Amino acid sequence: MGTDGISQEELQLATRNHGMPLELLREPVTPIGLHYLLVHYDIPSVDATSWRLEVGGRVERAMSLDLDELRARPSLEVAATMECAGNGRARIEPRVISQPWLSEAVGTGLWRGVRLADLLDDARPRDDAVEVLFTGLDRGIENEEEQFFERSLPLEEARRSDVLLAYELNGAPLPPQHGFPLRLLVPGWYGMTNVKWLARITLLDEPFDGYQQAGGYRLRRDADDPGRPLTRIFPRALLVPPGIPEFMSRARTVDAGTLRLVGRAWSGHAPIAGVEVSDDGGSTWASAELEPATLGPWAWRGWSYDWAAKPGEHVLCCRARDEAGNEQPLEPQWNLGGYANNAVQRVTVTVRRR
Amino acid sequence: MGTDGISQEELQLATRNHGMPLELLREPVTPIGLHYLLVHYDIPSVDATSWRLEVGGRVERAMSLDLDELRARPSLEVAATMECAGNGRARIEPRVISQPWLSEAVGTGLWRGVRLADLLDDARPRDDAVEVLFTGLDRGIENEEEQFFERSLPLEEARRSDVLLAYELNGAPLPPQHGFPLRLLVPGWYGMTNVKWLARITLLDEPFDGYQQAGGYRLRRDADDPGRPLTRIFPRALLVPPGIPEFMSRARTVDAGTLRLVGRAWSGHAPIAGVEVSDDGGSTWASAELEPATLGPWAWRGWSYDWAAKPGEHVLCCRARDEAGNEQPLEPQWNLGGYANNAVQRVTVTVRRR
Repeated sequence: MGTDGISQEELQLATRNHGMPLELLREPVTPIGLHYLLVHYDIPSVDATSWRLEVGGRVERAMSLDLDELRARPSLEVAATMECAGNGRARIEPRVISQPWLSEAVGTGLWRGVRLADLLDDARPRDDAVEVLFTGLDRGIENEEEQFFERSLPLEEARRSDVLLAYELNGAPLPPQHGFPLRLLVPGWYGMTNVKWLARITLLDEPFDGYQQAGGYRLRRDADDPGRPLTRIFPRALLVPPGIPEFMSRARTVDAGTLRLVGRAWSGHAPIAGVEVSDDGGSTWASAELEPATLGPWAWRGWSYDWAAKPGEHVLCCRARDEAGNEQPLEPQWNLGGYANNAVQRVTVTVRRR
Repeated sequence: MGTDGISQEELQLATRNHGMPLELLREPVTPIGLHYLLVHYDIPSVDATSWRLEVGGRVERAMSLDLDELRARPSLEVAATMECAGNGRARIEPRVISQPWLSEAVGTGLWRGVRLADLLDDARPRDDAVEVLFTGLDRGIENEEEQFFERSLPLEEARRSDVLLAYELNGAPLPPQHGFPLRLLVPGWYGMTNVKWLARITLLDEPFDGYQQAGGYRLRRDADDPGRPLTRIFPRALLVPPGIPEFMSRARTVDAGTLRLVGRAWSGHAPIAGVEVSDDGGSTWASAELEPATLGPWAWRGWSYDWAAKPGEHVLCCRARDEAGNEQPLEPQWNLGGYANNAVQRVTVTVRRR
């Protein structure tokens, strides 16, 4: 937990990782370089000609595949909205010290790759296999342990038909920062699930208890609470900040009149059921119009609202709810790791007379 | 000037703009999405089919060109290292409040476009033309003035044979965040010079006195000092942080033994004359070996140094000097805007016994 200001250590993370500039919410698919990015350790340099994916552990048939072999298999493209589990962390009080996101740690990509389920079928998990462990090539020290970044999935989740081993983003080979040559993609789950720079897939006969599973990425009340693991993305709506910004404060100025507010909303739990907009900081709400889900079930959903902008200062908010009954809270909910703060966005707008 | 911590306003800029993760210094050309990015206002959405570049002002022949017409002209590719004039700002004390860069606001791109000089020849500047003004499409409020981002160059500088109107980066159309469809590229000058989302080029018969020229981007002692304009990049060397990082502190751990330290160095004033390395925080220095300047005169130069890493904690530093006699200082030099802090990088490394 921290003081009022962001420390130089946090700033080191904020200058190397990056969010999606919120005006890019106008695009259904986020261009390369504008999708949010979080890298735990360093971006590894991978030689695709010598790289191989190893599949082993509790399987009948261990496998080793190179990139050409993977690309020769049947492929599938999935549009998925990905969000960092730490999105909103820097707005939680008392502050939690880690990557200090405000609300921009999100993006939507067109991910192409092979179905993980098909590969698992070929490897034939043994009857005692319960989890699938994914090991990346990025190595560092965290919680005083030297480690490769690795996370697991329950076998049943790993066998979902839309879980990919992805080698393309937006029609091009994965960029280095998004996991070249191969990453996991689990649509609907928070970003840390989607292990980058994949080197090894290991079937386990007991749940994985490494740091990124048992220590990090859990909703914990305090250090004694083992907490609940973070899995699927909680709902959030974000607004394209209207009008023009002031450089330093990012405060917005618009002209009076009817203004179409637009944004996007997503949830990893269930389809978006509705988005509401407020122009008085969350006291009163009106329903926005949802666009069709043209990118499929795992991508954010566009929405719009015609706002009668009257001169003065207004605080615009938006909030989403999903069909599973999850709704964004008005205020952040504190937890030890500063995760999953999906409190509603607030955008201060000055409306001036034309 | 600020307090010890970074404010939420500064963090808003740090989460939307981004630096180059320093491990990417290993690459001679920075991949898309990893090149540093600073956007003053919002990234504009430009429809390339209706976009035109207007050339006017003090010219005999005003012109209006679409993207196809520009692409049909002879083109040139220039490898250029670009750095933000604010790089290093967050390490200056007392702190200056703006985009809080540490040392990562840099990148090298392969920029392709048409020679500005050729276009100016066609437009035939009048005898009284002294400057060329470049107006971008990004609009916002700064210094309480509503403005498009615009900057000028002296006519002589604009006529340099390597100044481009660039429409490609690394062999692909400019990404939206780097100025699609067209930007100015002035190799060797700080980033703000290279106006993005170009809409208009205007020949002026007197020096431009808009905010980004007369207010911002000047080395000023205090608010009463008009200061000197920032133009060419001062020298800097950066080191690929060796070994592996700790997630939060980014502190490095390496094994004892001979370790090849590598990095890159650049200056916009003159070719790099030498790079030195220190492993004791800058008390003693040894010369690094410079690689050939294979990317041409405007790109950073690789260097290496074989370091005998002995167990314990060390502070690695590197510093560059150029053939014009500019050398990096050991400590930051304060100025009102927090610009051009090219004090030497310091990387704390723990060397452990193998």
